Amino acid sequence: MVRTLNKNAAQKIGEEITIAGWLHRLRDLNKFGFAILRDRTGFLQVVLDADQLGQIKDLQVESVLRVTGKVVKKQSKDPNVNEVEVQATKVEVLSPVKDVVPVEINKDVLDVQLETLLDNRVVTLRHPKQRAIFRVQAALVHGYRSYMEQQGFTEIFFPVLAGAASEGGAEFFKVDYYGREATLSQSAQLYKQITMGVFEGVYGLSYSFRAEKFATSRHLTEFNQLEFELGFVDGMEEIMVHAEAAIRAMFKTVSEDCRSELELLNATLPPLGDKFPRIKLTEALEIYKKETGIDETAEPDLSPAAEKWLSKVWGPREHNCGFVFVMNYPETKRPFYAMLDPQDSTSTLSFDLIGFGSEIITGGLRINRYDDQIARIKAKGLNPADFEDYLMMHKFGIPPEGGFGLGLQRITQNILGLENIKEATIFPRDVQRLRP
Amino acid sequence: MVRTLNKNAAQKIGEEITIAGWLHRLRDLNKFGFAILRDRTGFLQVVLDADQLGQIKDLQVESVLRVTGKVVKKQSKDPNVNEVEVQATKVEVLSPVKDVVPVEINKDVLDVQLETLLDNRVVTLRHPKQRAIFRVQAALVHGYRSYMEQQGFTEIFFPVLAGAASEGGAEFFKVDYYGREATLSQSAQLYKQITMGVFEGVYGLSYSFRAEKFATSRHLTEFNQLEFELGFVDGMEEIMVHAEAAIRAMFKTVSEDCRSELELLNATLPPLGDKFPRIKLTEALEIYKKETGIDETAEPDLSPAAEKWLSKVWGPREHNCGFVFVMNYPETKRPFYAMLDPQDSTSTLSFDLIGFGSEIITGGLRINRYDDQIARIKAKGLNPADFEDYLMMHKFGIPPEGGFGLGLQRITQNILGLENIKEATIFPRDVQRLRP
Repeated sequence: MVRTLNKNAAQKIGEEITIAGWLHRLRDLNKFGFAILRDRTGFLQVVLDADQLGQIKDLQVESVLRVTGKVVKKQSKDPNVNEVEVQATKVEVLSPVKDVVPVEINKDVLDVQLETLLDNRVVTLRHPKQRAIFRVQAALVHGYRSYMEQQGFTEIFFPVLAGAASEGGAEFFKVDYYGREATLSQSAQLYKQITMGVFEGVYGLSYSFRAEKFATSRHLTEFNQLEFELGFVDGMEEIMVHAEAAIRAMFKTVSEDCRSELELLNATLPPLGDKFPRIKLTEALEIYKKETGIDETAEPDLSPAAEKWLSKVWGPREHNCGFVFVMNYPETKRPFYAMLDPQDSTSTLSFDLIGFGSEIITGGLRINRYDDQIARIKAKGLNPADFEDYLMMHKFGIPPEGGFGLGLQRITQNILGLENIKEATIFPRDVQRLRP
Repeated sequence: MVRTLNKNAAQKIGEEITIAGWLHRLRDLNKFGFAILRDRTGFLQVVLDADQLGQIKDLQVESVLRVTGKVVKKQSKDPNVNEVEVQATKVEVLSPVKDVVPVEINKDVLDVQLETLLDNRVVTLRHPKQRAIFRVQAALVHGYRSYMEQQGFTEIFFPVLAGAASEGGAEFFKVDYYGREATLSQSAQLYKQITMGVFEGVYGLSYSFRAEKFATSRHLTEFNQLEFELGFVDGMEEIMVHAEAAIRAMFKTVSEDCRSELELLNATLPPLGDKFPRIKLTEALEIYKKETGIDETAEPDLSPAAEKWLSKVWGPREHNCGFVFVMNYPETKRPFYAMLDPQDSTSTLSFDLIGFGSEIITGGLRINRYDDQIARIKAKGLNPADFEDYLMMHKFGIPPEGGFGLGLQRITQNILGLENIKEATIFPRDVQRLRP
């Protein structure tokens, strides 16, 4: 018989159906019993007679069952189960669990240490709250892509393997490549700019790798970025317009497609106001000083406390908005490809989008003329010869342009209020962890 | 003034517009000249007076220009340009090209060696025929995803870094991971199956890496696969139904979204018939023998010639279909996770989808019970201790299931009839190549 999903059983009262899923819980009342069967759509209670109970009572939870039976209105008041139940006529064990499940998967909250959660990903991902995290993550990506497609931009599949590192900066992972050295991509920047020079507007999901030795709640050695790059722009505002619209599209998709997941995770999306406020870094630091008395105006960046205050206090209060664009970071804090502000060459035409108390998007305009890029590389104390691939695109003509990157795991963590970014990463890698 | 895209100029006859793009070609007629400006939507001819010509006549092609002028009906009969042209009133050089462009980007066909094509990706991708390849590739992925989303399946972002290799088989790339050894993923199989055990139906685009030393027209060291895995299946037919539907959805999206690209590349999609034929490997070899006189019935696989004949001759002739499912490959030719055929334990419940003369999709049912998987690993002469992560999911219960993988670069190559798979890879990596 064709399988019925648990959520659809309520429409089949009086009918015989076949359901299948994981044994989430078993109550053995001796002469009869109740099994809670979990599938991807939810839970369903099965009433078992003494024989059927005998057949499965020695099974571990998480064993996979198929049950045929009649759908009836149910008596129970357990909020975890549908308003119908199935009176089993046949029970089959599709896959018996062979060992004690290492976590209590059938509790409302999976109350385990992070290491236990991640060591046992095979099982812990099945907890409805864990599962919900990655449904939300997929919806964020879908919202992003659908916005970019509507704009007519082209999706790029960025490479992971790259040549030996010469550009310095943060640490690269090294790969033994047929006896030579290769590295894992730290950023899709080069490929975004090359393909912008072909398709004008490009986007995609990149993989980035950073061999930093930090083991904090914000570090991953492998992570994904939602990328964007656009040519023939008139100014930085054009890039910020797309960043704001992409965030709005992502939130819309999540609100529509993940209502139950957001509810389960007790997550509420921040207010988005009519328009995200845009302020310069110097202005942001002045406001912060004036309102909190904390003077960081001599700093080249926002402190974590200032980012928190701006996006959680000031933005919501002044603009009914949990996001704030902070613009014009000093040139010392931005990479060699950042466009200098023609009004003030100590600062760049760059921005961070601050939300949930931290930087969510980093972007800005890029240098597009060859001579300017050579000069800038030299001014940074770097050697143009180390940037051959990069400079090749400037040499052969790229338009005025800009773009941004948005960390997928970070925004997932922030939207859902997760303590550690690894909770927002389906198979996280860090200094210690490479498995599962 | 807001930029007008080249393709929209024809709707603005008599108006003054601003266009921007790359200098594709310049004809210097001394007293005046014609510039062909290329943007992402096509070509547009600009008429220049002597002063304007003087301003740009020393520029290399591929320099980036912005032109303001009046749209008029044009005289020229060059098929490369729209039926309107722009009489320039103002010409600005946004980025001058600084060196001689290494290929003739403004010829109808980019007649260069593969190595030249790839060494100069920054420029060669701008050729309309190169650009078209990657528009088609993106459309293939969009068609695939939209089918999978319609089915309610969950997109997974698979990891790239993995633990040290213990499973043998083809060669792994090794990564120096904080002094330990890590590897680059060869396959998303483990992660597909783990997440199938959570979401039941999963899909995604994986990155795979193979350190094979082959340097043929079919090998890449880094490539992408479109992945699929589904739990609670009744049999292999259910997996093949999704494989067929996914291919149909991909072709539909490409036909609709990439009409001009297919035309430009002179590509015609093969017939898809009403239903892709399904035959067993033994049957396929018998038909091949009977019809061609070539006896390969003792072989455990289809030869390249047989794959070609089946999908290019037999399928189209007998079923009006360029795709043929070939089922039940011998267990010796399939990996340790392939489900054996209960009717014949020398063969597996597996399939290849043959199209364009080669294997396009590989799939089948997987072993889902722990004891069966342990037994199968041993029968293959392997050590269960080397499969700890893999066996963990069987230990904790996964349903009857199956799935498939589809090589993105390979299907792009085949649809477009490209000689080398590297032409279907935006930034290909092979034994020699890691750049750009």
